[in-house]
Amino acid sequence: MINRRVVLRSRPAHVPEPDNFEVVECPLPEPGEGEMLVRNLFFSMEPAIRARLDDRMTYMPPIGLGEPIQSPTVGRVVRSNHSGYEEGAILFGFNDWQDYVTVSEDTLLLDRVSAEEGVPLSHYIGALGGSGTTAYVGLHDVGGIQAGETVVVSAAAGAVGSVAGQIARLRGCRVVGLVGSAEKASVVTDKLGFDVAIDYRATPDLAAAVAEACPDGVDLYFDNVGGATLDAMLLNMTTYGRIVACGMMAGYNQQDRPPGIFNLWEIVARQLRMEGFLLPTYTDSIPKALEELHAWLRSGDLVVLENVTHGIHRAPEAFSHLMAGSTIGKTLLALDADEGTMPSVATLEQQIS
Amino acid sequence: MINRRVVLRSRPAHVPEPDNFEVVECPLPEPGEGEMLVRNLFFSMEPAIRARLDDRMTYMPPIGLGEPIQSPTVGRVVRSNHSGYEEGAILFGFNDWQDYVTVSEDTLLLDRVSAEEGVPLSHYIGALGGSGTTAYVGLHDVGGIQAGETVVVSAAAGAVGSVAGQIARLRGCRVVGLVGSAEKASVVTDKLGFDVAIDYRATPDLAAAVAEACPDGVDLYFDNVGGATLDAMLLNMTTYGRIVACGMMAGYNQQDRPPGIFNLWEIVARQLRMEGFLLPTYTDSIPKALEELHAWLRSGDLVVLENVTHGIHRAPEAFSHLMAGSTIGKTLLALDADEGTMPSVATLEQQIS
Repeated sequence: MINRRVVLRSRPAHVPEPDNFEVVECPLPEPGEGEMLVRNLFFSMEPAIRARLDDRMTYMPPIGLGEPIQSPTVGRVVRSNHSGYEEGAILFGFNDWQDYVTVSEDTLLLDRVSAEEGVPLSHYIGALGGSGTTAYVGLHDVGGIQAGETVVVSAAAGAVGSVAGQIARLRGCRVVGLVGSAEKASVVTDKLGFDVAIDYRATPDLAAAVAEACPDGVDLYFDNVGGATLDAMLLNMTTYGRIVACGMMAGYNQQDRPPGIFNLWEIVARQLRMEGFLLPTYTDSIPKALEELHAWLRSGDLVVLENVTHGIHRAPEAFSHLMAGSTIGKTLLALDADEGTMPSVATLEQQIS
Repeated sequence: MINRRVVLRSRPAHVPEPDNFEVVECPLPEPGEGEMLVRNLFFSMEPAIRARLDDRMTYMPPIGLGEPIQSPTVGRVVRSNHSGYEEGAILFGFNDWQDYVTVSEDTLLLDRVSAEEGVPLSHYIGALGGSGTTAYVGLHDVGGIQAGETVVVSAAAGAVGSVAGQIARLRGCRVVGLVGSAEKASVVTDKLGFDVAIDYRATPDLAAAVAEACPDGVDLYFDNVGGATLDAMLLNMTTYGRIVACGMMAGYNQQDRPPGIFNLWEIVARQLRMEGFLLPTYTDSIPKALEELHAWLRSGDLVVLENVTHGIHRAPEAFSHLMAGSTIGKTLLALDADEGTMPSVATLEQQIS
């Protein structure tokens, strides 16, 4: 049985290129006592990975050259030395990008997926995984969202933004999405039900465009990008407005100086609260988040957009696309599915066994 | 009886110069029904005035050319058409910089000063006025200060910073002050009891100097300056650290682009909360703040530093000095005091009557 992994070959200078990565063969790991051998089914592709490709500490250590990339994954137990996890169990966890990995109860984010009929397993690393729960706790626990507010979401067609905007809509807010292409603008208004979309690349003065779309100001800004977009938003917040700092995509690809912010005086003048967060801080809120996200998915109120690439050999390309900002919805890699079809639980079980 | 006022003559390009102002004679106002004629005794000199000298709206409208400068003042009622305010009453309020003004119950911040034996009236626009209460509510209501924390205060020798640092010390925190001269550094450690002072002008790498002074990180940063200092502090905050955004002095003198901030990614990575505030939002907390500030003043735990200039004709010079960053403690202008002596309540009463 061949095992393969995606490793870091060289550190990207700006936007990662497929050449920065390499897919190499590696030994099939042997599960020790209390461990399980897991066949990875999906890798989550997420901008947070980018920070670890630079050679400096952020909230996680950098990934070394030759070391495997890591992210949340969904996989299936194929051999178990742990009485609590039977073969066939579907597990969520933070794992190396390999065909097969060993997993224990110490694995970061380890959770058993109670796969629901009709819900693609891929959703469990997207709308029903870190992306969806991040959007939920960001709006509720950090942002204190209230019905009737004006909410702006940046990277609105992205994995987190697309869910955040829909939650805000479902909470009775007016929702404006900031996106980077006309196609994304159509998607967020036509498919996701945002009230307005602004394509910042086609807008000479973003601050003015937001002011036009939000004449009474913005109560809550869910920020995935930072940079010039954040600067424009600072000029549009209401008094006591809240900025939920979820990500700063605008700086991720820049090895040297990230983009400057010049309008922070507005934090004082408008008495704004800007708060950053990482999902693990809000672990206690996740069950409630998942309950609501599941319910919205069942009722059809929540539309899930996924951008799936098939085959581990294409992981470098898929991640590079994501970081170039050209994807819509949750970007993920399916390891075992047939080309072009979304795997159902049943198909995956067959393929693995 | 001559009345004089300080008006804006031209808009400063950077640091205000005395020539940007003019002291002109003006009619003595006649108090209408329900109004009082007030002899101003002290003008508060504060950086917030600077924002209104530029021709753009912030949280207050700009001051027009030829119009009087305004700030908190302390004055004495010399004629009253309001049954609730007798002649001789000492009033705090937000007034024009004039010898005499008319005041009504609608005057912004209007409050009666219950002058306490031995407390100079000047304190009521400083440590017992907006500066002290701003420091208090910033640390408590906005910053959630806790005993045992590490607190850093910028512009630590200034009106607000000097009180903020002392309150933090009295709350049982380790306190580091950031200042702009060796003299200020001595003052905050030797006179005000800060644990450490860092002269940022004499420090090639402020972030490294703060890291050395605060090896376990900074829990609470009380920021009066913004700019490069804020940028350095972002690299030193603990996880869940709080930044109280009280002022952004670094940008006040710059008509064009304020200094850029490049390290906002730390807001996400360290899960920081940065919150701006203005005192009127916390009106309900002011009585409690004043009670504690008074008590600390009486016990000698709170040292008040004042930088007093005498004579309305010297107001332009005093304000320019403040904005050049060269003053220590609360900067204020005394209108009627003899040169060089701090007026007691009794002296002032005599001078006015």
